This record gives sequence, C-alpha cells and structure tokens, in this order.
Amino acid sequence: MPFDPATIRSEFPILATEVNGRPLVYLDNAATTQKPQAVLDASRHYYEALNANIHRGTHHLARAATEAHEHARETVARHLNAASPDEIIFTGGTTDGINLLAHILPVRAGDEILISTLEHHSNIVPWQLLCDRTGAELKVIPCNDSGVLDQDAFRSLLSEKTRVLSVGWVSNSFGTVNPVAEMTAAAKQAGAYVVIDAAQAAPHFPIDVRALGADFLAFSGHKVYAPTGIGVLWGRRDLLEKLPPWRGGGEMIKEVSFSGTTYNDPPFKYEAGTPNIEGAIALAAALDWVNALGLGAVHAHEEKLIRHAADTLSEIDGIHLYGPADRCGALSFKLEGVHHYDLGTLIDQMGVAGRTGHHCCQPLMARFGITGTTRASFACYNTLDEVDVLATAVSKAATMLR
Amino acid sequence: MPFDPATIRSEFPILATEVNGRPLVYLDNAATTQKPQAVLDASRHYYEALNANIHRGTHHLARAATEAHEHARETVARHLNAASPDEIIFTGGTTDGINLLAHILPVRAGDEILISTLEHHSNIVPWQLLCDRTGAELKVIPCNDSGVLDQDAFRSLLSEKTRVLSVGWVSNSFGTVNPVAEMTAAAKQAGAYVVIDAAQAAPHFPIDVRALGADFLAFSGHKVYAPTGIGVLWGRRDLLEKLPPWRGGGEMIKEVSFSGTTYNDPPFKYEAGTPNIEGAIALAAALDWVNALGLGAVHAHEEKLIRHAADTLSEIDGIHLYGPADRCGALSFKLEGVHHYDLGTLIDQMGVAGRTGHHCCQPLMARFGITGTTRASFACYNTLDEVDVLATAVSKAATMLR
Repeated sequence: MPFDPATIRSEFPILATEVNGRPLVYLDNAATTQKPQAVLDASRHYYEALNANIHRGTHHLARAATEAHEHARETVARHLNAASPDEIIFTGGTTDGINLLAHILPVRAGDEILISTLEHHSNIVPWQLLCDRTGAELKVIPCNDSGVLDQDAFRSLLSEKTRVLSVGWVSNSFGTVNPVAEMTAAAKQAGAYVVIDAAQAAPHFPIDVRALGADFLAFSGHKVYAPTGIGVLWGRRDLLEKLPPWRGGGEMIKEVSFSGTTYNDPPFKYEAGTPNIEGAIALAAALDWVNALGLGAVHAHEEKLIRHAADTLSEIDGIHLYGPADRCGALSFKLEGVHHYDLGTLIDQMGVAGRTGHHCCQPLMARFGITGTTRASFACYNTLDEVDVLATAVSKAATMLR
Repeated sequence: MPFDPATIRSEFPILATEVNGRPLVYLDNAATTQKPQAVLDASRHYYEALNANIHRGTHHLARAATEAHEHARETVARHLNAASPDEIIFTGGTTDGINLLAHILPVRAGDEILISTLEHHSNIVPWQLLCDRTGAELKVIPCNDSGVLDQDAFRSLLSEKTRVLSVGWVSNSFGTVNPVAEMTAAAKQAGAYVVIDAAQAAPHFPIDVRALGADFLAFSGHKVYAPTGIGVLWGRRDLLEKLPPWRGGGEMIKEVSFSGTTYNDPPFKYEAGTPNIEGAIALAAALDWVNALGLGAVHAHEEKLIRHAADTLSEIDGIHLYGPADRCGALSFKLEGVHHYDLGTLIDQMGVAGRTGHHCCQPLMARFGITGTTRASFACYNTLDEVDVLATAVSKAATMLR
C-alpha cells in the first residue's frame, strides 16, 4: 500500500479542527502527537469489555485484562527487539523512566555522570538530583555550532570514573541525531552504564535494543501516537534482576512482612501499584498502528517534510535555522530581531501550531546565547502543503513583525 | 432525583457483559471500579478536540488543553475542599503519591514511622524502603479480632520520635473505617506529619481535607470511576513549598543550568514531565459524575448493600466474616475448610467477580493466621439482587466444595 497522508489524516478526528476559520496545521509533534482512531478505540474497548485490576484476580474480567496488559508488553518487546517481555517496564513516561534509573543505579561520590548539552531537562535534572544526593559529578559533552555533539570531547570525557552515560538519541530542539550506537560502545568499554533517551527517536524510526548495545532505553507513549501517562523503560534483564527496587507497593513484592519484605522479579519489581492498564494496551495499539504503516515509510515521509521545511524557510530574510542539515523530527529557527513568542503567536493566528520557547532545553539555549526558538516538528500525518502553509505564515509574520 | 441503580447501570457498557451465559455480577470494586459513559466521553473528547502538550505552548490547542487540565485540578480541589488548586498534585495513583512522600519527608535515623496492621502494601513498603535508607524505624498499630485498630496502643506508640503517621482511612480488605480525624489530631499534637491513604475512602464518602486536619492525602482515580494511571496527592501548601523535589524533569523546574537548577512552585514542582493529561481530565469528569449522584446517596446505597451481604452470607454454614459490623466498601469472608482461591473460582463460574487472596495485605492476613480471604466489594451500580446472587453462589460453592 502506498504511504498516503490523506488516508492517514482521516484516522485523526482532531486534524479536522479549524483555528480562526483556517484548517489546523499541527506541527507540535515533538511535544505530543495526535492519536488515531485505532488507539482511541483500543482505550474504549478496554473499558467497555475488559476493565479489571490485573495480576491478582481469579475472575473472568481480571484474567482478560491481565492477558491484554501482558500482550501489550509482548508487543512493546517485539517492537524494540528486546530479548524478553520481562525487560519491558511500563512507566508514566520517559521522565519517569529516567528518574527510576537515577534512583537505582549504583552511583557513589567521585563517580561521574555523563550527559550532553543537547539534553532535555528530563535527562538533566534527575542526574543533578542524583549528584546532589551522592556527591557524584555531572559532566557534559559539548556540541558545535550546528548542534552536533563533539565526539572527540566525548571520548576525552570518558574515563574509569564514568559511571553512567545518559544521552538522547534525537534532540527535541534541533533534531540532531546522535551516533548512539558508537557512543554506547565507547562508554561500555569504559565500564559505564548506558541509558538512551529515545523519546524523540521512537516516533521516527525503528529501534533495535539488542543491536544498540545499551543497558536501558526510555520512551513516552504520547509522542508515538499513544495516550498520555504511559511510557516504557527497557532494561537488560540481568541488570533489572540485580538492581534494587525504587517505588514500593503492591505488585512489586514477593512477600511482605513487618520483619522484612522480598521483591518480585522484573518487570513487576519496578511496577508498584495498579499500573496504567488502559495506557499500556493503547500504547500497544499505537505501535501496531504505526508498524502497519511501517516506520521506514514514516521516516522517509518525514524526511521529505523536514527538508522541504528547511528549504522553504531558509528563503525567508533574516531567518536562522538551528541544527544540522540531516535533522530528524524537529526544526528550530528564529527570525532576526523577532521574539520567538511573538512569532509563535502570529503563526498560531494563521492556524499553525508550532512551539516557542526553550523546549525544556535551557542549557542548550544558553549555549547558543538565546532564550528560545520557534520549532516545527513533524509526524506521519503532516503534508508538504502544510509545510508551505508554515513557510507562508512565517514569511507573513516576518513582514508584520519587522 | 431518586437514586436508581438501574439508571446508573445503563451508563456502564461493561455491566452488560455475560460470563458463562450469566450476567456479570461485578463485586471487585475495591480493586478497581468500572467507568461510566461520561468518563469515557471526556477521555475521547480530549483526544478528538483538545490534545496538545500543556503549560508551555502558545498555540490554540495547547492553550485549550492547559485550560482543561487546570480546570480538572480545580475540580479535584473543590471535591476535597482543599485551600487551593495548588495543593493538588496529579500522580500515577495512590502508590505513586505515598512513594513521593516517602522520598521528600525529612526522616532521619532514630525517627519512627507509624503505620497500622490494616495497611495495604502500598502504605507499608515505601516506608520500609525509607527506613532501610535512613535508619528510621517502622512501628505498627495493632488491631483487635474484629479488624479494628487498638486506639490505646496507637496513643502509647506516639512519641516525640514519631516523625510520620501514615494510615489508611478505610481498610481495603476488611472495610474497617478508621477514626482518622481523631488519630490525626493526636499525631499532630505529637509533632508528626500525617498522611492519609484515602484509596478506599474516596469512592465511598465525601472528603474534606480542611476538616480532617492531616498534612497529606492520597487517592487513585481508577477506584473512583476514573481511568487507570491517574491519582491525586493533596498536600498542605506550606509543606509542599518547603519540602524538596522528588522526580526531576520538565515542568518541575524554574530554571535549569549546568551550574545549578531552581525549582517551580507547587504543584508543578512535583509534576515532572508530561502529565497524564487525559487522566486528569477524565478524573474530573468522574468526580463531577459521582457528585451529581451525590456521595451521600452513594454511601447510603452501599451501606444497604454491604449490610445485606453480611446478613445473607452469615446464614451460610461455616462462613466467617472478617471486620467490624459497620464496614465500608469491602466485605471479606472465608468458608471453613475451603481455600479462598477455590471459592473465588467457583463463584466466578457462576458470574460473580469477587477477589480472592491477600488483597495486598499480607501482614494483616498473617495477623489472622490466614493466607487470604474471598472479598466482595461494592460500588454505586451494584444492586441488592446482585448481593443475593453472590450469597446463592457462595452457598452453592460451599455445598460443592465440602
């Protein structure tokens, strides 16, 4: 079947929204994606036919709900090419997954945590808090003026002190794709735990955790066509087995007594309390949906969009595009002499939903001497026509604001 | 409008399910409740009309989604009679809320954490893990043979060493309603922080946090007709302001730099990352829905159900009912000489969804020298006829199993 954005769009009720009498052009996909009918139906079906608390029930619905939830875990495991569904921990999102790691990894005073200038706050602050608790030190891989990580600097920052490398696969601000497989290999050789923040990778290309070689990888459901409030932390089974628990509660225990408690096996050891059952099932539906399109086809389509965006926007006087030419997903820009907020407000009035601000990357903005950018970010349902609407809107706004 | 279970039932599509050709009798509400059409519609409407990431967007959808999310917070604040919406933290559920507290409260070696024998694992294990980290000591209020907390023992356990009292309002296993207002007053007088686990209270009667006088109160959406994956932690504003953050990430920061990060004001300080936006909005819809019925009317109806259940079940030879006569929500029982699992399996075959096992209360089961019970638990949509079906099923099962 040919990849057809018009057919795809018809599965997203919200894309028919009008803003000020103009069709909505939704280019804020790096913040969150819209949800296809198949995902909304999976959520609804869960509540209309299956809803019960899972794992501890003998009754009909509890068994059906448990089966659907664990089937969702298998879908995620297959999607990531994990060695086993036991390596899939359902979380509240990428942020939740990284915080979990920042609490269970064995980090001590004198250790170093290595991240990069490109990171989202969710891959900075949990490690800063960990350093505050332990006396470890945060080290930061710098980037060049194109927003590309300096690999020489990275290698020279690696040492036997490096306890954790935690790096984003794709920059949510600039769309930079980091060479995470190579970086993982180098960090593993140095003896570090390797964490990949795949929040901006998961929507755009297939992920094979076994090929990647990292220890942990986190992503969010809501950025890959699934509901809010659900995410995944993949972890190597042997590590999940030996690391300590984080949140305590039901599900994560083997046996509780006031004289001492033993913990369940992974993944349940890291899933305290009633999970987001609906979210897990709808996430699996979203992965099934995007895999039916084919992430390869999605990627090819999105590459066309982002190249066309870069080409058309770069014709506008006084525009500056951030990031390298081979961006993925997100394109950040600014207009000389125009505040990003004013630009965002004006293009919104013309129906274009972009994002303005620091994109939860204040240190990256500081590196470039700015407080923010305007960002367009893409999903499978966007069209070349929408890119043209964006370029026209930015161009008009430029005339109006200067 | 008179309280009419038949009308209420028509709003729950799942209640028309058949199990083995018999109508489903869903009596597992303490594990999770079913969701009315109004809640499913609120979730769907969010994705069909509003979905965008919140708080940081200038565009139309982002503003609409933010408004709906913050409106949900106001609804929760009103529902709890909180002093301000800023006191409402959205969490993943009760377990998540209690774990948050077990990480931010200032507990040191030598301090004592006071809980009770009746607690759910989610109000035990987080404190055990805290004691492991800090050298604090866990103290446990015992209960009598009716599953009622010993208030004399409670008062004698209180001392200047008591740093935290964390107690469930209603026992999920036995339906015991603890005198939490009095216990709160005594613990506050001793200088302790007071945490109320309201997971089993929120579905059954109105909660007024200002009248209660506690410092924190947690509940889960999915037990009060809302989706899975969303919960609430209410906390006194002055405490939320001065206590440290827990999870790091977007939203919870004021300013991030590699030389140091400052944190946002509550509630955002405790809401790192993209929240469960759908969940918060649907939770507000669930609270609106149950408040339209009136929690007073719900409570009166459920009291009738549980008394009728106790009356009819107690006529069965060899049955033992746990808990006091004035139970709320849940009724635990066992048949002499019959394993709870076998009983649960048989009544399931007759269409009755109850729960069997330790109900995440292993220490309570140990106190009574058992490994588990069979439990029926009630919601507003249950009927007296369903109670009769339960009693008949248990009676038949008793004949078959003995």
